[in-house]
Amino acid sequence: MAIKALKGTKDIFGDEVKNLEKIENIIREVCKNFGVGEIRTPIFELTHLFQRGVGNTTDIVQKEMYSFIDKGENNITLKPESTAAVVRAYLEHNMGENAQPTKLYYLSPTFRYERPEAGRLRQFHQFGVEIFGASSAIADAEVISIAYTMLKRLNINNVSLHINSLGGPQCRAKYNEVLKEYLASKKDLLCPLCNERRIKNPLRVLDCKNPDCQKLFVDAPRTIDSLDKECKDHFELLKDLLTKMDIPYIVDSQIVRGLDYYTKTVFEFILEGKNYSGTVCGGGRYDRLVEEIGSKPVPAVGFGTGIERLLIAYLEENKNLELDKRDIFIGYRGNLALEKAVVLVNNLREKKFNADTDLLGRSVKAQMKYANKIGVKFAAIIGDTELETQMLSIKNMATSEESKVSFVDLEAFLLNN
Amino acid sequence: MAIKALKGTKDIFGDEVKNLEKIENIIREVCKNFGVGEIRTPIFELTHLFQRGVGNTTDIVQKEMYSFIDKGENNITLKPESTAAVVRAYLEHNMGENAQPTKLYYLSPTFRYERPEAGRLRQFHQFGVEIFGASSAIADAEVISIAYTMLKRLNINNVSLHINSLGGPQCRAKYNEVLKEYLASKKDLLCPLCNERRIKNPLRVLDCKNPDCQKLFVDAPRTIDSLDKECKDHFELLKDLLTKMDIPYIVDSQIVRGLDYYTKTVFEFILEGKNYSGTVCGGGRYDRLVEEIGSKPVPAVGFGTGIERLLIAYLEENKNLELDKRDIFIGYRGNLALEKAVVLVNNLREKKFNADTDLLGRSVKAQMKYANKIGVKFAAIIGDTELETQMLSIKNMATSEESKVSFVDLEAFLLNN
Repeated sequence: MAIKALKGTKDIFGDEVKNLEKIENIIREVCKNFGVGEIRTPIFELTHLFQRGVGNTTDIVQKEMYSFIDKGENNITLKPESTAAVVRAYLEHNMGENAQPTKLYYLSPTFRYERPEAGRLRQFHQFGVEIFGASSAIADAEVISIAYTMLKRLNINNVSLHINSLGGPQCRAKYNEVLKEYLASKKDLLCPLCNERRIKNPLRVLDCKNPDCQKLFVDAPRTIDSLDKECKDHFELLKDLLTKMDIPYIVDSQIVRGLDYYTKTVFEFILEGKNYSGTVCGGGRYDRLVEEIGSKPVPAVGFGTGIERLLIAYLEENKNLELDKRDIFIGYRGNLALEKAVVLVNNLREKKFNADTDLLGRSVKAQMKYANKIGVKFAAIIGDTELETQMLSIKNMATSEESKVSFVDLEAFLLNN
Repeated sequence: MAIKALKGTKDIFGDEVKNLEKIENIIREVCKNFGVGEIRTPIFELTHLFQRGVGNTTDIVQKEMYSFIDKGENNITLKPESTAAVVRAYLEHNMGENAQPTKLYYLSPTFRYERPEAGRLRQFHQFGVEIFGASSAIADAEVISIAYTMLKRLNINNVSLHINSLGGPQCRAKYNEVLKEYLASKKDLLCPLCNERRIKNPLRVLDCKNPDCQKLFVDAPRTIDSLDKECKDHFELLKDLLTKMDIPYIVDSQIVRGLDYYTKTVFEFILEGKNYSGTVCGGGRYDRLVEEIGSKPVPAVGFGTGIERLLIAYLEENKNLELDKRDIFIGYRGNLALEKAVVLVNNLREKKFNADTDLLGRSVKAQMKYANKIGVKFAAIIGDTELETQMLSIKNMATSEESKVSFVDLEAFLLNN
């Protein structure tokens, strides 16, 4: 029986990988423009890192990790997200001792064992940015601008930026009390999960996807009403900088993000698309995470985004994408012509043209059919006449127009056509 | 205690990742020129695939695989090489039904649990090309030309191409007899491992790294003396095409490659470098592998190369590589100037310049120190005077020369300097 790829994993090839490469190139260019350097952390880490960095009580850590014991008796896990690994690397390499801030991005496979019926992949891919060592809202504005610029360059326009502030620990504590009180007053209307959460972690109640619960949250107290002066000033500066940079935003008190480690700014870019609607990119400030993973506190702000979602949005908004075509196919009739075709094609490739010949020894008719299928701009066949005259008859595959070009002028012809 | 990356894994960042990206860009460009499309297979596969595709008796499968049982009771393995996975994908997606040949490349992390004292990484990275569906030596020549072109574009020159032919199964059987006889005559001089192997798999004896054994192999029978007419013609055409393409080669009867599935052509690019000597890239024809993994026979030829080795060779031959610099740093003094700096920098980034400002609210002196550390071409500070005159005094960091530029002319200035 044929062996297949595992459920929840897939091969990426053909047009899909070409489009992915376009997205990745845009991401790399945006990061370069913003002075953000790449980091590639290993595919797996000690399981302990994610227990600390993601949180032992989260679904990810409790149910979804690919964890196993390696031959050296280490409990290791395929990364279920990248932020914890980037923080680990930041600390391990003492990056805090270099010029600050440290600005890093990752583009990485990520693994979660989720139910495949949800249409989710178990190996998916994330792009994210982390800025360490900057506590000012200037950094929050910069991170948001990176995401905004990326979405713009990807031509993903049906997107709106929602921002909120959760405040620091002291504001959170104050808010939690106000929120608990409000939720208690609605307890008969809340779903069972919300009622379970409202005692232990009231903020997470607001993440509930149940539409009936969501309606109740519209009038819930807002985190921004519990901010102290420092957190309020931080949020004001962020809004001011976004306005000055012409980045439109909506203050949305329902944006609270799932994870405990967020402080002050949180944000989401929400897409209204035909094939995908929802958060396409989210992040915020997490001044408590670095300490959690094993060091003194270091301010940090960042975001993450799923490449698979970006691809859906990108394809929806960029119809009729021109994918690279091979420039020319040069076929042959007979052994001497074969050698000439191989040499001409090889010379063109050396000069960075995309060129191809027949590897199968097919008939001339079959070769032209092949040229047509792989999508070349030009095609030509070398036979006895062409060898004698050192001239090719080059067919423009779109117009069927033929041009006579000598072997030595081939490069110039391709440059000019 | 701080959590570290696992032994045998490492973070890639800073200059290293910039150089890797340069290598990857060259690889992608070469593949595009040769009409080879990318494929990304999952990080893990059913363990069974590698048992069949790599061989149950190899060290890789017996000792070095990261295998484990997932939550769905599947026995899965992090890929220890990519060819078997690419073959699986070729079959699963019926790629043989598209225009043939199918030309694919991969650039992938790879995992082997090896002793770390050998200086080897447990997560390393491979680039490779596979061409399916072409039995002619034209495809072998093309595959070799891809590797040759890549090495040339990477400026890795101290390299020589060694080629050999193992013939088809019938030539191999004939050769095995002749070789067994020869090895039996030397049995008192061979090392114990060689004596063990010479009965079961005499060809692999020639892979022995023991210098005393190596001396004995110089006079061993050559595989090319046991080729039948078809295999001989195949090898002649390959040599002829390489000569015509100006790709120098050495016929080297000691190149036999470790794996059983090779047929006819095998080759290695061998580097004589200061920091690394040995095979930098190797491959060949493997007409029996696709059938092994679960289908009718499909001719195939390819090669693989370790990115870590390529990087060592690349850095050795490319001294003083210019790594990208950020174009400009614009600092500020005071809150109004801060806003102006953020906006100017953001506008430049939108226009795809690399620009940076201070995220930490540092003193002007500290800002200029930072600009110097991160390596920018130009730096400027906005203060009250600059806000009033709408002019910047831009310092060229290499020459210390200063230029007066108005805010609106900033883009033009950077374009022209």
